[in-house]
Amino acid sequence: SSKKTWLDTMSIRGYVQVRNNMTLGGDRHIRHQADRSVGENTNFIIRRARLVFSGDVSDRLSYYFQPDFASSSGDTGNIAQLRDAYGDIHLTTDRVHRLRVGQSKIPFGFENLQSSQNRVALDRADAINSCCKDERDQGVFYYYTPQDKQEMFKYLTSNNLKGSGNYGLFALGVYNGTGANRSENNSSLHVVSRFTYPMKLDNGQIIEAGISAHTGTFKPNRSAIGGITPTARSKTDGFSDKRVGLHAVLYPQPFGLQAEWNWGRGPQLNDERTEIKESSLDGGYVQAMYKIDNLGGRFGTLIPFVKWQYFDGGQKFETNAPRNKVNDWELGFEWQPVPEIEFTAYYSALDRTNVQSSPYEKYNSDLLRMQLQYNF
Amino acid sequence: SSKKTWLDTMSIRGYVQVRNNMTLGGDRHIRHQADRSVGENTNFIIRRARLVFSGDVSDRLSYYFQPDFASSSGDTGNIAQLRDAYGDIHLTTDRVHRLRVGQSKIPFGFENLQSSQNRVALDRADAINSCCKDERDQGVFYYYTPQDKQEMFKYLTSNNLKGSGNYGLFALGVYNGTGANRSENNSSLHVVSRFTYPMKLDNGQIIEAGISAHTGTFKPNRSAIGGITPTARSKTDGFSDKRVGLHAVLYPQPFGLQAEWNWGRGPQLNDERTEIKESSLDGGYVQAMYKIDNLGGRFGTLIPFVKWQYFDGGQKFETNAPRNKVNDWELGFEWQPVPEIEFTAYYSALDRTNVQSSPYEKYNSDLLRMQLQYNF
Amino acid sequence: SSKKTWLDTMSIRGYVQVRNNMTLGGDRHIRHQADRSVGENTNFIIRRARLVFSGDVSDRLSYYFQPDFASSSGDTGNIAQLRDAYGDIHLTTDRVHRLRVGQSKIPFGFENLQSSQNRVALDRADAINSCCKDERDQGVFYYYTPQDKQEMFKYLTSNNLKGSGNYGLFALGVYNGTGANRSENNSSLHVVSRFTYPMKLDNGQIIEAGISAHTGTFKPNRSAIGGITPTARSKTDGFSDKRVGLHAVLYPQPFGLQAEWNWGRGPQLNDERTEIKESSLDGGYVQAMYKIDNLGGRFGTLIPFVKWQYFDGGQKFETNAPRNKVNDWELGFEWQPVPEIEFTAYYSALDRTNVQSSPYEKYNSDLLRMQLQYNF
Repeated sequence: SSKKTWLDTMSIRGYVQVRNNMTLGGDRHIRHQADRSVGENTNFIIRRARLVFSGDVSDRLSYYFQPDFASSSGDTGNIAQLRDAYGDIHLTTDRVHRLRVGQSKIPFGFENLQSSQNRVALDRADAINSCCKDERDQGVFYYYTPQDKQEMFKYLTSNNLKGSGNYGLFALGVYNGTGANRSENNSSLHVVSRFTYPMKLDNGQIIEAGISAHTGTFKPNRSAIGGITPTARSKTDGFSDKRVGLHAVLYPQPFGLQAEWNWGRGPQLNDERTEIKESSLDGGYVQAMYKIDNLGGRFGTLIPFVKWQYFDGGQKFETNAPRNKVNDWELGFEWQPVPEIEFTAYYSALDRTNVQSSPYEKYNSDLLRMQLQYNF
Repeated sequence: SSKKTWLDTMSIRGYVQVRNNMTLGGDRHIRHQADRSVGENTNFIIRRARLVFSGDVSDRLSYYFQPDFASSSGDTGNIAQLRDAYGDIHLTTDRVHRLRVGQSKIPFGFENLQSSQNRVALDRADAINSCCKDERDQGVFYYYTPQDKQEMFKYLTSNNLKGSGNYGLFALGVYNGTGANRSENNSSLHVVSRFTYPMKLDNGQIIEAGISAHTGTFKPNRSAIGGITPTARSKTDGFSDKRVGLHAVLYPQPFGLQAEWNWGRGPQLNDERTEIKESSLDGGYVQAMYKIDNLGGRFGTLIPFVKWQYFDGGQKFETNAPRNKVNDWELGFEWQPVPEIEFTAYYSALDRTNVQSSPYEKYNSDLLRMQLQYNF
Repeated sequence: SSKKTWLDTMSIRGYVQVRNNMTLGGDRHIRHQADRSVGENTNFIIRRARLVFSGDVSDRLSYYFQPDFASSSGDTGNIAQLRDAYGDIHLTTDRVHRLRVGQSKIPFGFENLQSSQNRVALDRADAINSCCKDERDQGVFYYYTPQDKQEMFKYLTSNNLKGSGNYGLFALGVYNGTGANRSENNSSLHVVSRFTYPMKLDNGQIIEAGISAHTGTFKPNRSAIGGITPTARSKTDGFSDKRVGLHAVLYPQPFGLQAEWNWGRGPQLNDERTEIKESSLDGGYVQAMYKIDNLGGRFGTLIPFVKWQYFDGGQKFETNAPRNKVNDWELGFEWQPVPEIEFTAYYSALDRTNVQSSPYEKYNSDLLRMQLQYNF
């Protein structure tokens, strides 16, 4: 028998996103925590530069190793930092039951789990995304996926239907709760669970709906505002941090709809900016899209879309957990002239908070957002 | 003739270690410089996330390029930093004589040279490991390995016998002495030499014993303790930094023993914490293990082990070179249900110093240490 | 039809440079912004440790992804940071017209575009190199290369003739202007254009000559000198930053000559060190070399060379944009005993400015510079 080589158990791929945003009107000094190229004194940035090393070592172990080379440390830009580093231990060799251990995405919501390589809009909606820094954390997650649903999850991503990938019909996990690439700062683990169900309608179109919930204790970073550091009369270990979310997706065959909403409680800076308190939060988004394949016979795939998002709640991973109020509209398209090149352009009416620096101002700005993505 | 492609001269592999430690008793605020997941307010961490790019370019050049993606810079976690980046220039095409130039492991001791991927205990013993930051430095090393011993070193690692890999029967090298990934801070080079001899007994079991020594001048970093920076009445360029070590290994076929001890002198903060002085140091470890293959017919390999380590000396790579007193016991097992998955769990009675921050307290703690490792 | 795998669209290669410089005479505390191993308290360093992931995904997209693992962030050394991350979108499938988008080299001059893997001298000449931090920036570049010249550019690099690679006969681009891996700090883009023409003489030798120009607005970083931060009475957005350069190359078949000069204006600290002003700059270099293949029948390739460089102008990417005066000589050789190993050694008479820290002193030093490079 011939011995396995590394090529039997590893494949490498990657993608790069280059962005440029133009402020068309409104507040020109807007800042957007998800995109440093929004606002004044900006031009081109590399938003993501990823390499993925992955494979099946055996019928017991699959792995996924993904650094991003567009991360930064202080003023040092475009350094390599882990996104994923996990193994899937297949408890059964039919891959129905598995344990994912390491740093990986937290199974909460839908858009969080969908790859940035596949998402139509440039950034995830704040309402859901604010649950989980970089969507990921370090922990242990159990996933249950029957074999027919394994096929269906695969079909949805490999046919460019903007699927989430396989995060199980059912998921249950524990994780630090401090966010990807950050050290734990209390002794309590977060717990998350998710149930989702994709099914094919009689007309062949696929729909999916589900529910997620997480709970834990979160200790936000604090720093002085106008010389005074906000107080945080929490339990020693932090604030209660819990959410429940719903998601529903009609996959774009050709018309698609995607909606999520979540409600919860977590740390939030009060309006006087003197104290962080446990507060309620809620928000979500609705997105409609239409997938036109084989555009004009030879111009590839075009996906016009419109998205509305809303959020009112504490942005816990930002220093002082400031309150973020978001009410954004996006209207535009993703165009794939060939599968390996994607160009996205859209008009965006932003109504949101600068959550990165005090006094946490609100902005109203109109942007033209553009991104070129390479898949290799 | 067919042209060589990159696949003829490169292969890629990797491994990931995920840890979790539980404090069972004793001082709960213990800190361990080798594992940030020991102590209060900790849960999961990724201890190592490595990719190795290596190969033979020709019969004159082999290379090894290994970044670790679980390094950090300030608060920025899980970034990529070099461990190894060297070439082996084969002075003779039979590979008996070679020069290793770049960043690589310093040939001192045995456990330092054994890969963390293969080691049974989660961390190396401080007594030997304190010689060499991350076991590595930048320099030039000559290695002499007769062909039969090349085979033997290879046999010991590829058969899961916890070998060190081939660092020569004889080694002689010069290196900066400031540690891996750190800039040189004086003009003097360290010199290291090592002799080791593995041999097969009549019963087929392999034993190995050897001696190492290094000498150089070391200039520790200093910072204020209670407002006062310790003085360092050294030569301008630093303190004498020299050690001699012995190692002996009975490879686990199935019973194994491993022991090392080293003695030396180097910089050390005095007990009053006012001055760094040249002081003596000594310490080592003894480890017994038993390798059970094909456990219960289908449960893989189990290696129960016990380890005791002792150290009393300056931890030169830590700021102010504090005195580290260690007297630790470890008792547990490494289990490989399949070769690509390793789970290690053990009870550890720690009696050691917090060498990372003043006042450099002593701790006594009982831990349950656990690690899951993926090899791909 | 057989499906493409990742091996059809990706190949991986790399190189590592290890250096050591000895000060033979003159000012021993010299500093050189391009090489931290020059000066006091230095020994071995890894100057570059690169991996290149590249390929043609289709006749519409090529990509190039190159991190360097010898970058640093503060005191954290040898971390991974992007050099290149771009796609070439082939507007025509004959690759005559293409757009390069992402982070890539700015098409200015000749030596800037020549890979460090191929360059004979250890560092680029300051006069040209000071235009472009790490030679690169984030932007969009159009390249025009007729098919016969595509072949010629390829011939010049693949035959070890120290070519630049294919940056077009004609290039036109826009980019941030703040340098590779740095955030844009004003709203204006830089514009660059270049024309170069390689041609084969009747005797078979290839010559090349060309012209480059760039213009933009540059805002330097400032910090206090002796407690006082220099003023910068510029337009709000920065100083005019423009250059025009000429280059000419006679490729080493076997005798080679290479020369460049550029003239321009940009920000520069005044001699009193109180104010940054727009000032003129000029400088360049001349290099002669001789390529001896198959040395002594079996000792590989030897390239003796001599290089003179001159510069007088502001070093805009350094804090406070200090004036740099350079008048350096280099005399030595590059030796490739086998193609995968290169050893460079030369005498260098340096007459230059410490541009990294105030008071920006001038140095006169004689060095022996050495580098070992591995190609894999």
